[in-house]
Amino acid sequence: MSTLFQPLSATSAAVGDDVGQSFTFPAEQPLKLDSGEGLQALTIAWKTFGTLNAAKSNAVLLCHALTGDQYAAGVHPVTGKPGWWPFMVGPGLPIDTNRFFVICANVIGGCMGSSGPHEINPATGQPYGLSFPVITIRDMVRAQAMLIDHLGIETLFCVAGGSMGGMQVLQWAASYPERVFAALPLATAARHSAQNIAFHEVGRQAIMADPEWNGGDYITKGTNPRKGLAVARMAAHITYLSEAALHRKFGRNLQDRAALSYRFDADFQVESYLRYQGSAFVDRFDANAYLYITRAMDYFDLAADYGGVLANAFRDTKTRFCVASFTSDWLFPTAEAKKVVHALNAAGANVSFVEFTTDAGHDSFLLDVPEMFQTLRGFIEAAASARGLPAKGA
Amino acid sequence: MSTLFQPLSATSAAVGDDVGQSFTFPAEQPLKLDSGEGLQALTIAWKTFGTLNAAKSNAVLLCHALTGDQYAAGVHPVTGKPGWWPFMVGPGLPIDTNRFFVICANVIGGCMGSSGPHEINPATGQPYGLSFPVITIRDMVRAQAMLIDHLGIETLFCVAGGSMGGMQVLQWAASYPERVFAALPLATAARHSAQNIAFHEVGRQAIMADPEWNGGDYITKGTNPRKGLAVARMAAHITYLSEAALHRKFGRNLQDRAALSYRFDADFQVESYLRYQGSAFVDRFDANAYLYITRAMDYFDLAADYGGVLANAFRDTKTRFCVASFTSDWLFPTAEAKKVVHALNAAGANVSFVEFTTDAGHDSFLLDVPEMFQTLRGFIEAAASARGLPAKGA
Repeated sequence: MSTLFQPLSATSAAVGDDVGQSFTFPAEQPLKLDSGEGLQALTIAWKTFGTLNAAKSNAVLLCHALTGDQYAAGVHPVTGKPGWWPFMVGPGLPIDTNRFFVICANVIGGCMGSSGPHEINPATGQPYGLSFPVITIRDMVRAQAMLIDHLGIETLFCVAGGSMGGMQVLQWAASYPERVFAALPLATAARHSAQNIAFHEVGRQAIMADPEWNGGDYITKGTNPRKGLAVARMAAHITYLSEAALHRKFGRNLQDRAALSYRFDADFQVESYLRYQGSAFVDRFDANAYLYITRAMDYFDLAADYGGVLANAFRDTKTRFCVASFTSDWLFPTAEAKKVVHALNAAGANVSFVEFTTDAGHDSFLLDVPEMFQTLRGFIEAAASARGLPAKGA
Repeated sequence: MSTLFQPLSATSAAVGDDVGQSFTFPAEQPLKLDSGEGLQALTIAWKTFGTLNAAKSNAVLLCHALTGDQYAAGVHPVTGKPGWWPFMVGPGLPIDTNRFFVICANVIGGCMGSSGPHEINPATGQPYGLSFPVITIRDMVRAQAMLIDHLGIETLFCVAGGSMGGMQVLQWAASYPERVFAALPLATAARHSAQNIAFHEVGRQAIMADPEWNGGDYITKGTNPRKGLAVARMAAHITYLSEAALHRKFGRNLQDRAALSYRFDADFQVESYLRYQGSAFVDRFDANAYLYITRAMDYFDLAADYGGVLANAFRDTKTRFCVASFTSDWLFPTAEAKKVVHALNAAGANVSFVEFTTDAGHDSFLLDVPEMFQTLRGFIEAAASARGLPAKGA
């Protein structure tokens, strides 16, 4: 695997050990893309947790969100912090690594080892940069299907994810219905809204406005659009939280001072917090990857591939769905989740829907929400039973 | 008046004719600022519409929002477009220029002729830049009071404005209760929330990340942080609209193309619209002024000046208030307006409150909302009658 990820972090020496696995598909197996292009020498990097059973019937695929990666559980090798779903994935947790074989792959277009703009193009020996093809959520899922084939798994017991991960879950259920026994799309939508696109466009423009972006060729030119990427992250981060959460966490509290400075320092805690979010993010993420992945989300409109009728994406599906949304999520509001549920009902699918009451906004799906764990645990247990998997503790 | 505004626009030759009036106060009349500093040689630029009556009892002061200016009505000299309140201010309109003497002044810290970072510091002959003192909403209002004194007006019949303009209205009523007969704070709040501050901080960081900002010295260095300011405007602009308005206006419609480009062009109309909003804005606004004015809004917390009890800001007020909010405004939501109303009620003030049903978001107060015009017209007529002004058409 060729990766340029290491230079992003001082802890790069540790990455090699813990990056999980990766595989580069032979040139005669290119990834066919929605754009019409093909991606040769597709590399996928992934992590697994738990053990695949003999029947290969206990595999759970986790799909990560925009800035996530394959480190759903355990310790993230760059940040040294827990993976992105610490309350959901692990021994005894709802996605129980004692019982399930959990797979999480870095999306294509990402920057943690799967093919993306940050990686070396094997055909040129240079980083792809903007020569990397624009990809879609369906392309991400198609690449994951190649990985699942590579692992010799026919049917996934469950595909789960939130936000962009939830988009992939919906796309999996639509593209490969016979390969998805249960689907858990959380805090997501079947299409990106105008407001969603608008916020992403602000982030992209912030990156491209940074002269260190250098038309996307910053790696070869030895620059890094850190400031632009940090601004993009700051803007996005606000949308991941609710007004109530920001008020509860920070209100108008001052940061390390007793009075207003009458300067442009970070007087308020919320300013300091956002600046930290921006600067920490650039240590672990690639600016071009941010462009590609936001673009993929903006392009997502599942109904459009099915004559504009979302229900047609799920015709005759046997998959069991649990769709979940959060009251305080204004980025992927409950109204969007309900559109998915209505379409599933119209398609006669087996679907549960639950809206959790939280004040934490879109990020709620990543947080410690006991009601969510209880509900999802119940859904997963019932699905496991229907799948013929041994009961918990059996 | 010394102004560097002209270089911002190709239509600068016309600005001189139509900039309205301006006055520079003598050095012995500095503006006392909340920071403890004093601003010498305070210049205020303003426009008037209509005629002051002999009793000087028909003056209406309009307070503009973040990116507004003194051009509330008529044609804006830079953009060639109508002023910012075309549906509200003019002959026969709710703020009737046939009956009232309407004054609108550029706020200090702004960039349309009043003292601000874009202007020449008379003490040095150089643009203020970041040597301009950080100012507050109360400072803006204190400067306006100096202007009203200069015009020989004792009591304003009405002070009106939306968003930051509404903050100034509340500050006027608190600081000079005996000088405000009627107050119209629209789409506003008595304090800036954590989420409001967060969005402003993103804008400031976008500006400061632009190397052409040059630590604020861009005028003397011959640069202009256009890209940073455009990104700031794009992020802010999203917050001025509702998700519903963006969906209604643009949805996922493509811009000048039949299919996705699979590039980073502005495929979607909403992207194209935002890019236009960003680039048009930098032709008429100054990046440092954006920093100063957003800071003033962030600092606004009216209750904090009154022992944390907002009602104390309005004790014994005789002013008649009409507070208005809009259902789709998520930047200054109705909950914030209600806090103002509760405080006014607690202070025993004469207050009407109305929430208008719109889907246009925060910008609703600037738009053609017939129900709003009808309501505000009624409030203004009743106040005019109480003030002893002749009835409409009399």
